[in-house]
Amino acid sequence: MIIDCHGHYTTAPTAHNEWREAQLAAFAAGEPTPAYPDISDDTIRETIEQNQLKLLTERGADMTIFSPRASAMAHHEGDERISIEWTQACNNLIKRVVDLYPETFVGVGQLPQSPGASIDASVAELDRIVNELGFIGCNLNPDPSGGLWNSLPLTDKYWYPLYEKMVELDVPAMVHVSASCNANFHATGAHYINADTTAFMQFIQGNLFKDFPTLRLIIPHGGGAVPYHWGRYRGLADMLKKPALADHVMNNVFFDTCVYHQPGIDLLVEVIDNKNILFGSEMVGAVRGIDPTTGHYFDDTKRYIDAAKISEANKSAIFENNARRVFPRLDAILKARGL
Amino acid sequence: MIIDCHGHYTTAPTAHNEWREAQLAAFAAGEPTPAYPDISDDTIRETIEQNQLKLLTERGADMTIFSPRASAMAHHEGDERISIEWTQACNNLIKRVVDLYPETFVGVGQLPQSPGASIDASVAELDRIVNELGFIGCNLNPDPSGGLWNSLPLTDKYWYPLYEKMVELDVPAMVHVSASCNANFHATGAHYINADTTAFMQFIQGNLFKDFPTLRLIIPHGGGAVPYHWGRYRGLADMLKKPALADHVMNNVFFDTCVYHQPGIDLLVEVIDNKNILFGSEMVGAVRGIDPTTGHYFDDTKRYIDAAKISEANKSAIFENNARRVFPRLDAILKARGL
Repeated sequence: MIIDCHGHYTTAPTAHNEWREAQLAAFAAGEPTPAYPDISDDTIRETIEQNQLKLLTERGADMTIFSPRASAMAHHEGDERISIEWTQACNNLIKRVVDLYPETFVGVGQLPQSPGASIDASVAELDRIVNELGFIGCNLNPDPSGGLWNSLPLTDKYWYPLYEKMVELDVPAMVHVSASCNANFHATGAHYINADTTAFMQFIQGNLFKDFPTLRLIIPHGGGAVPYHWGRYRGLADMLKKPALADHVMNNVFFDTCVYHQPGIDLLVEVIDNKNILFGSEMVGAVRGIDPTTGHYFDDTKRYIDAAKISEANKSAIFENNARRVFPRLDAILKARGL
Repeated sequence: MIIDCHGHYTTAPTAHNEWREAQLAAFAAGEPTPAYPDISDDTIRETIEQNQLKLLTERGADMTIFSPRASAMAHHEGDERISIEWTQACNNLIKRVVDLYPETFVGVGQLPQSPGASIDASVAELDRIVNELGFIGCNLNPDPSGGLWNSLPLTDKYWYPLYEKMVELDVPAMVHVSASCNANFHATGAHYINADTTAFMQFIQGNLFKDFPTLRLIIPHGGGAVPYHWGRYRGLADMLKKPALADHVMNNVFFDTCVYHQPGIDLLVEVIDNKNILFGSEMVGAVRGIDPTTGHYFDDTKRYIDAAKISEANKSAIFENNARRVFPRLDAILKARGL
């Protein structure tokens, strides 16, 4: 079975997105948030069946770990109340997709982070999405400011209540920034990749996994720059008098396969232990075109794994087993179905 | 001949560094900057012969394009006057190294950038280091704030007077940030690599090389995350309706080989056109230890090029010819020596 660990609802219904605009306009005007619109099941079906479900089927995957559109989380917009409202609306919409296609989609939620706010609302929402909505993980924004980077590193105690809740619920987080309001950083071309690299280096500098030995964090987009610079990171850990990365970080950190060409994937599977790699595509996401050098979609990452020179057992681990290990609640769902 | 395009004077004499501390302390106290200390030629010789010169010889390179310590540029410290003083002191010190070892070192200078200041002082210093000190290029900091990223993208007209001067003098710049004062960003593990990635994406978004078709910029550290995510960047250029990267960016942008393990270099030389790769090591820099998996220094990047599965002609281009093309003033110096 093939599980895509990284899918966002980038094609959410227009009414949902318009409500967000209305919400932010009301906030700016000092008015109450308008009521959330009625969105029919058919509308949701249309957005999914023409996009993620169609592509997933065509490309031969079975299941997507599905979360709200990352670039639209925009934790820097409005204030904490606005972020809570928007987050709940987005997560509830994911729940509807999961309920319509339970065989194909399983939910991961965004968190109501807000610059300068405490992490408490995120802890509460994580509890809600896991215990009430049946989600299996969350997306954690390491820079809720949207490119100003004025919050605390992920190793700071500020984040610990969330990590405690994650450990308690046995759910992982994907470390994923949102839109950039900094003109220096293109969102998907710089901010995303920079955040991945930054998070990994924070984990090297800190001792987070001594405090949380079972905490699991997925760094998307193939780990940012990290595998390409694996020698640098091994060397920096050494210079900082940290244990080897295998012990210090790599029992807890995982990379997805959102790397949109064969040589990148080949490097990833060569350099990073197989147990740390999860299949992901982020399809209908940052890069939606066809690679003229291959004639296939850039984000059809399954093709690259299929072509990688690794064993079938290692491919199965990337496609399925690692995701089931990192997301135990997904494993439980699948086992209950006899899968 | 083997030319290392990326060396910093990381072992500068203690008196030089102490003067910097005294300068900043005086600035903070509102007092005049103390006089620059006398530093003997022997002191300089000692710092070079025990470090860069020794390693360069041991590793089999011939020449280093040498510039002030990047992490010490710290354009965010003090104000523009402080940055001008410090920059001139650092560049003058590089000139002394070059004069002591003219066969081995050739100078590249830092610029007196300062957050919020105009680019005029940098234009003037570039003129001075090229026309008076005989330098062949400069290092350009895309984030003079030191990790706050509150300046303008490199494609903004703010930078154009510097680019005009670079074109007039026919010298390239290496895009290189300095220290990070943002706790989120480890300097050499996150800020450096992020800046490389960020700069490249800015070049994709803009049309800088339409305005400056002969401008040449080196993105160090193997181009940050870019070669690993080459498919993403090709795809993003397509989504942004830009020409193919080969035409849009890669006549003007070059990557060095500061990638500290064999698989990373193998990816670089596979994915990036040979003409765009310059040998560099940044030795005695970010990563100074020995790789336990090879028994050799991480930053002995010549070994990786030697082992790469590319033709001897392509290796020669990386080791020498590309540097001579990107730095025409170096080529002229070498030709004048019959090299």
